[in-house]
This record gives sequence, C-alpha cells and structure tokens, in this order.
Amino acid sequence: MAEAIDFYFDFSSPYGYFATARIDEIGRKHGVPVNWRPILLGAVFKITGAGPQPTLPLKGDYFIHDVPRSARLVGLPFRLPAQFPFGTVTACRAYYFIAQTDPEGAVRLARALYDHAFGKGRDICPVEAVVGVAAELGFDADKIQSGIQAHETKELVKAEVDAAIRREVFGSPFFYVGDEPFWGHDRLDQVDLWLEKGGW
Amino acid sequence: MAEAIDFYFDFSSPYGYFATARIDEIGRKHGVPVNWRPILLGAVFKITGAGPQPTLPLKGDYFIHDVPRSARLVGLPFRLPAQFPFGTVTACRAYYFIAQTDPEGAVRLARALYDHAFGKGRDICPVEAVVGVAAELGFDADKIQSGIQAHETKELVKAEVDAAIRREVFGSPFFYVGDEPFWGHDRLDQVDLWLEKGGW
Repeated sequence: MAEAIDFYFDFSSPYGYFATARIDEIGRKHGVPVNWRPILLGAVFKITGAGPQPTLPLKGDYFIHDVPRSARLVGLPFRLPAQFPFGTVTACRAYYFIAQTDPEGAVRLARALYDHAFGKGRDICPVEAVVGVAAELGFDADKIQSGIQAHETKELVKAEVDAAIRREVFGSPFFYVGDEPFWGHDRLDQVDLWLEKGGW
Repeated sequence: MAEAIDFYFDFSSPYGYFATARIDEIGRKHGVPVNWRPILLGAVFKITGAGPQPTLPLKGDYFIHDVPRSARLVGLPFRLPAQFPFGTVTACRAYYFIAQTDPEGAVRLARALYDHAFGKGRDICPVEAVVGVAAELGFDADKIQSGIQAHETKELVKAEVDAAIRREVFGSPFFYVGDEPFWGHDRLDQVDLWLEKGGW
C-alpha cells in the first residue's frame, strides 16, 4: 500500500492544472494523502534540454490544439494567458511559504492560482498578482509579500526543486505513488489503477 | 464522421507496438478503416531536436521503467532488444513495398516485425532479418529483398515520411482521426471517444 501520492506540477503547466480536477478525489478514494509539490520546470529543462511545448518545432501546434481540447474533456474552464509560458517562481514561493504552517491553505492557494492563470487567463507572474490571489482567499497580504521575499522561502523552493530533480521528475504533472513514477495528465487512470490493484 | 484513422508509428517505438493491440479493434468498432503508416522518427528528431527517449537525461530511467510496465498493462509479450533504439528504414521499406499491392499483407508484416522486435527481443535492423520475417509469413524472400533495395521503394518511404512531417507528426504512435491529431499510446481512449462522440 502506497503511503502517499506526490503530485508534482509547474504553475505554468496546463496539464498540471487539468490534473487538479481529479488528483485529490483519487487520493480520497484510496485513503492516501496527496502531497502537492509545485516545481520549476525551467530548472528541469536546463538538464533535459527540453523546453516549453509551445516553443518546440512541430509539437507547438499540437500543444495549442490539444490543451483546449483536453480542458473540454476534463470539464475545467480554460483560457490561455496572453503571456505563456510564464514565470512561476513567485507562485512557487508563496505556496511553500504558506505550506510550512498551513498545508491545506497552500493547496487552496495553488488551486486559486491555477484557476486565475488557466481558468481566467490572467497573469500570475508578478508578485502583486500572487499576493492578490492569496488576499482574496483571506491570507494576510503583507505577510505573504514578505514571505515570498524571505531568504528561507527561496532556499525552501530551491531544496524542493532539487529534490524533485533527484527523483528524476522531468515534466508536469508528474506523480509518485509511493516509489512508482507516472508522467503526464494522461496517466491519472494508471495512478488510480495502481492504487486499486497495488501495482501490476 | 471521420473517414479513416491514420496510425503513424516507428518500428523502433515500443509505444507504437503497444498501440497495435487495440488500434484495429477501435477502427472496426466504429466502422472506419485504419491506415498503418510506419515512419522514421530519426527524420522527425532532426527537426524537433528531440531524441530517442532512453538516451535523454532524466527521461531515460523513466522510459526503461515505463515500457515493461505498459506492456504488462496492455497484455502484450515484451522483451527489449539488446540493440535499442535500432534502425528501421529496412522494415519501413519492406512495409511500403508490400503495401503497394497487398495492404493487408503489409499490416501482417508490420505486426510480425513488431512481435519479432518487442515480443521476442530480436534484431529487425538487418535486411536479412526483415526478409526472414516476411518469408515466415509466406512472402517471396527474393522479391522482398529486391523490393527493399529498389529506388522506387526508397522514394516511396521518403515521400511517406515527408508527408507525415508536413502533417506535424512528431512522435510514435501518432493518430489522425480525420483531421484530428492525437499523440501517444495513452491517447487511444481519446481516439475511441472522438469516434464515438464525433468530437467534443
């Protein structure tokens, strides 16, 4: 029996956003906690030599076509932000700053940031945008603002991203069911099945 | 209603092999023909800058883990050939040489080559290996051998690969349901659903 699902994602990844529609439900169904772990794909791409899908030859057009098609199938509102891909380091820092004392609040923030970015197509790159989304959820704006800029928060994010890379997380979303890795939103059915059958 | 499924694959792609377990059944279920279209991913990778998955940083280990896991789920025999990835231009030429006069025979050859390579883990790179597999199916060995080397066959393969690239086929397997593109073995359920619902 897996002790947890680790759910890795980048806030700039629409497929990560799509995974949020089911991941917690899958955890509940099997009685395992889901650890939301935002990462920075930019750091991963430096190692893999890959890049954001819309910028890749041949793959770019498919991505632009597949993303809204996947959104319709998943049933989530979808609007691609004008600036895409976008920087997510601030969103990531806000998440981990909050998660230190309020893990559930951090997940609420993650959902709200994803909804802001891909549900409404708004920019979540600037500090003020992330703080604004947090404030709407009732977080203290000043506290979040200084938390985002704190040295310890930056170190925390770096440690999380480094740990993800050591675990060979190379895309978003990426799941570990215990020690079993699954890459891609397409694999949620397999995550579910793995938990149901205890592997195959 | 889509008129056909175009099924693009490289003979060196285990995920293409896995797709062969269901693709014809999906076509039959919806009453549409399935056009098997082997391609040469090497030509595609020259454009995308990607490479065979086992050779990529971080991704390589996942691939080595995921491929046998996917085989078990699909229920196909699986054995990774000692030489992998391997050249598939000869297999591709044999396929299209036969397909000119015997499309169903060409599909039988494709299945046999895939079974040879990934079911049994044998080498299908050399001409004699491809000719041997064809001969086992009852094809005339001399005819296949000269067909593989004929200038017109080489041109035919080149034209097919160029046409696939113009259609922005960048991976294996890759499916078109009419004009609708789907990338990856993971997407077979969506291919099925697209035909069932006529899109979404």
